[in-house]
Amino acid sequence: MLRMSTLFLRTLRDDPSDAAVASHKLLVRAGYIRPIAAGIFSWLPLGVNVLRKVERVIREEMDKAGFQEVHFPALLPKDPYEKTNRWEDYGPALFRLQDRKGSDYLLGPTHEEMFTLMVKGEYSSYKDLPLSIYQIQTKYRDEARPRSGIIRGREFVMKDSYSFDLDDAGLEVSYGKHRDAYISTFDRLGLKYNIVSAMSGAMGGSKSEEFLAPCSTGEDTYVLCKKCGYAVNVEAMSTKVSAGETTEHPPIEVLDTPNTPTIESLVEVMNKKYSANIDASKTLKNVLLIADGNPISVLVPGDREVDLKRLEANLIGVKELRLFDDEDFAKRKDFVKGYVGPQDAKRLGVKLYADPRITIGSSWITGANVRDKHARNVVHGRDFQVDGFVEAAEVREGDACPKCDTPVIIDRAIEIGHIFQLGRKYAEALELTVLDSEGKSRVVTMGSYGIGVTRAVAAIAEQTYDEIGLVWPAEIAPAKVHIVATGKDDLPFTTAEKVALELEGKGIEVMLDDRREASPGVKFKDAELIGNPIILIFGKSLADGKVELRIRKSGEKSEVALAEVVSKVAALLN
Amino acid sequence: MLRMSTLFLRTLRDDPSDAAVASHKLLVRAGYIRPIAAGIFSWLPLGVNVLRKVERVIREEMDKAGFQEVHFPALLPKDPYEKTNRWEDYGPALFRLQDRKGSDYLLGPTHEEMFTLMVKGEYSSYKDLPLSIYQIQTKYRDEARPRSGIIRGREFVMKDSYSFDLDDAGLEVSYGKHRDAYISTFDRLGLKYNIVSAMSGAMGGSKSEEFLAPCSTGEDTYVLCKKCGYAVNVEAMSTKVSAGETTEHPPIEVLDTPNTPTIESLVEVMNKKYSANIDASKTLKNVLLIADGNPISVLVPGDREVDLKRLEANLIGVKELRLFDDEDFAKRKDFVKGYVGPQDAKRLGVKLYADPRITIGSSWITGANVRDKHARNVVHGRDFQVDGFVEAAEVREGDACPKCDTPVIIDRAIEIGHIFQLGRKYAEALELTVLDSEGKSRVVTMGSYGIGVTRAVAAIAEQTYDEIGLVWPAEIAPAKVHIVATGKDDLPFTTAEKVALELEGKGIEVMLDDRREASPGVKFKDAELIGNPIILIFGKSLADGKVELRIRKSGEKSEVALAEVVSKVAALLN
Repeated sequence: MLRMSTLFLRTLRDDPSDAAVASHKLLVRAGYIRPIAAGIFSWLPLGVNVLRKVERVIREEMDKAGFQEVHFPALLPKDPYEKTNRWEDYGPALFRLQDRKGSDYLLGPTHEEMFTLMVKGEYSSYKDLPLSIYQIQTKYRDEARPRSGIIRGREFVMKDSYSFDLDDAGLEVSYGKHRDAYISTFDRLGLKYNIVSAMSGAMGGSKSEEFLAPCSTGEDTYVLCKKCGYAVNVEAMSTKVSAGETTEHPPIEVLDTPNTPTIESLVEVMNKKYSANIDASKTLKNVLLIADGNPISVLVPGDREVDLKRLEANLIGVKELRLFDDEDFAKRKDFVKGYVGPQDAKRLGVKLYADPRITIGSSWITGANVRDKHARNVVHGRDFQVDGFVEAAEVREGDACPKCDTPVIIDRAIEIGHIFQLGRKYAEALELTVLDSEGKSRVVTMGSYGIGVTRAVAAIAEQTYDEIGLVWPAEIAPAKVHIVATGKDDLPFTTAEKVALELEGKGIEVMLDDRREASPGVKFKDAELIGNPIILIFGKSLADGKVELRIRKSGEKSEVALAEVVSKVAALLN
Repeated sequence: MLRMSTLFLRTLRDDPSDAAVASHKLLVRAGYIRPIAAGIFSWLPLGVNVLRKVERVIREEMDKAGFQEVHFPALLPKDPYEKTNRWEDYGPALFRLQDRKGSDYLLGPTHEEMFTLMVKGEYSSYKDLPLSIYQIQTKYRDEARPRSGIIRGREFVMKDSYSFDLDDAGLEVSYGKHRDAYISTFDRLGLKYNIVSAMSGAMGGSKSEEFLAPCSTGEDTYVLCKKCGYAVNVEAMSTKVSAGETTEHPPIEVLDTPNTPTIESLVEVMNKKYSANIDASKTLKNVLLIADGNPISVLVPGDREVDLKRLEANLIGVKELRLFDDEDFAKRKDFVKGYVGPQDAKRLGVKLYADPRITIGSSWITGANVRDKHARNVVHGRDFQVDGFVEAAEVREGDACPKCDTPVIIDRAIEIGHIFQLGRKYAEALELTVLDSEGKSRVVTMGSYGIGVTRAVAAIAEQTYDEIGLVWPAEIAPAKVHIVATGKDDLPFTTAEKVALELEGKGIEVMLDDRREASPGVKFKDAELIGNPIILIFGKSLADGKVELRIRKSGEKSEVALAEVVSKVAALLN
């Protein structure tokens, strides 16, 4: 039983000043977590309680699916991560350190390498497969901007699983099992979520889906078609392109456009001076970037920005990407800032990539690569060729669903799970092979599957809180019932204690506010803030043999006869 | 149910080449752990299983005692550890790192600072105390010589508790509660242990006891008096000194002792050349050391070595201690190696410390601070004075118990727990105060209490293994019953499966060897190596309605009627 009189807990009246999202504010105010450093938190008893329950649900669902639990250290030697290039590729997000002998170590951000090597150490035959193993473990990422409390921390708990199969068909089965196990897990945790197609990102591999918990303060943006159910990560949204035009276009024409370094000024000049009657969508924006040290130009319609995250996810093979800065323009005076066009790409030695909207045969108004001059009738295929198409332009609410053409909606969410057909990348790099039934060596096919455990705590809080506090689902609340005894008399306290023990006898967890000095108001506020699903109040009405029962979520209040309160609570929880 | 046909487990026939102690060898061979780097291990499913059970026992006993669980990060900012000087004091054993912004962090070796600050953040009144909080958490120490498998690792799991009281009397109570909780915990884990007085070491503080699990390969040495029960860490053994002599001694006499740089050669020369008829115990050994950069000399009887660990623990205020090396002698030619005596300490500018055996009034043969010369009749108090007494000489089996004079025994053990009256050191450094009942600010008094969780797994293995494998106590074995089905027929397999399910229905954990291809010999060997307490064999005797039941620990075998096997097993486990 959790007794408020001795519980190591102090609730706070005010929101912490550094907290921006509700879960962060409320978990701190209600005494679940405390900040230690940027993105690093400690857990008070109520927090440990909820975290362990989330862990337990995840563990039970993994075990039920036949996945086996293992455990890796967080402190890992460099060598395996060097073999897969992740020692380098991870960049500054990897915590690196040296031991007393000067050997290089890292704090594991994910454990693909270690799992691969573990299986390599134990297994050698196709008969050993399939295998799915997992761990619930503390991970480290040196985020550039740790924020939103425990949603994006630098030390956090993850459940990560990996599947090992002989071939792609086996991977499909293992992937499906994980998908099902994730559905049961998140359902039990009371989370609302969408399963969304995702890009593989830096991981390299094929099929990948994210479990996104919709939430207005979430950091992930995804696209949803309410008609056909198409749901993708914004990075993975593919552009619905109308058939290319077949019109003959007039030849290129270079125009005087003084002082028009922006799309907005260009449109104004075109309409006023050249009576063009156009909007920004008819102009072509040339966005210059540095990709792995070399300049590239990405073409998008003038009414859209380049979405760097989308571009990064879709520009395969590029590790580092950034926009041109003043220094770059200073070095390359041949790029005329504000007047760049694709016509001279070859001369300028720049690779050209086009958003799919820049169809072959389409005609554009764009820079003439000369100060104060633009060109019109610049036709893709006639006046410039691109090195490739790439999904680069921002996605907007109302864009056409690529499957059914309906306008899509855009929503924000927290990524709570990610399942991923990793393929043979890690097995190849670390030489994980088995002998097949014909005695031939085969590279093992892997899947990787993650759940943010600490993040799930925040996601549940985000999806369930209300204006007075946290509202936990029964499965993971610190206690099922929060009993408040009030008044100066002993009776409410002794009766509350008796009922608490009876409930515990039935296996129902109880939090008992047995503080004699706190006022009823303080106790009610604490109960609401802490967020257990059922609140029982033992006070004045006890004289009439009545107890007040409140449902935290709905706010519903009722009076229950003392004799019936235990059975009533038990019934509500079933 | 753990099924050997799918369990992620490969047992090894041979001991790993790098393993020196039984727990390391057997936990690797039986597939519980795997090495990742020096002192860093991963845990396979059987290992996770046992580790979680040990954790559960500890958690239950802590909760039962009313201690509350919290959780801290392992990645910690430098600042609090700088305030207590531990950032420096920990030396190379602390893993230090920087984040992307260049801020200093450490991987927590223990969390005194963090617990102190946590309580400071929440509590402010004497009414809030007493409080005991704990965590089960991964810790890091960059050991110079990680060894003995998981007994001394660099990443390991600890349960650490801290108590907070208003005064010393409160600390006594909290300390006693922890002592009791530790006794229940280790009893439930099936560990044999002695509770032994310990020095406070680098922690600073007063009363301190260690829970030592006797084990021939243990790294801790302790002293035990079988008569009066006196039990201390070797560092804490106090020397029983006979009353000082009162005899008048002849004056100092310098003797020619060519080529006698060792005690052995000195004794020989004294006896042969000067007919002294002495043994080494009459000579005085001057051991030169560098303590925090300055030379000191420690005097012990010639028949004993200086025990550096004992000296370090008892030489209060000294942080770094090492023996004189050739370089030191080269720098200080006035110290004549092999012929040093205490008579010229002042001239040589060296602090003198004496083992308690060097009583005031005692007379010695020692170096004359001149090459090839020694002096006799060198009397403590007359010919030299010391700056202090210090327990420095090695302890030997048979030394007198300081309480009852009986010869003590010396035994080796693994330290599995440590309880410690920390006092006000951390609370003072980090300003943890509360207001007392008179409104006066009082520094809080703390205790710290640790259990090595991963180490406990090894200690249990060490104390219970036999020549054929591990022998777990039922409470923490991977399963209570290991069922082996043998033969080519289906019957043993289907019957075994049925009994396994029946046992599981009674809440008895089962490991089922349902492998069709493995030979009976391999299966028996695996069962013995893995170490579950009861082994059931379903084989040929099944034709007579019999199952073989083996007790892993005693090796006892019996035949049990199939119909009675479930009730028999249940009875054995009760």
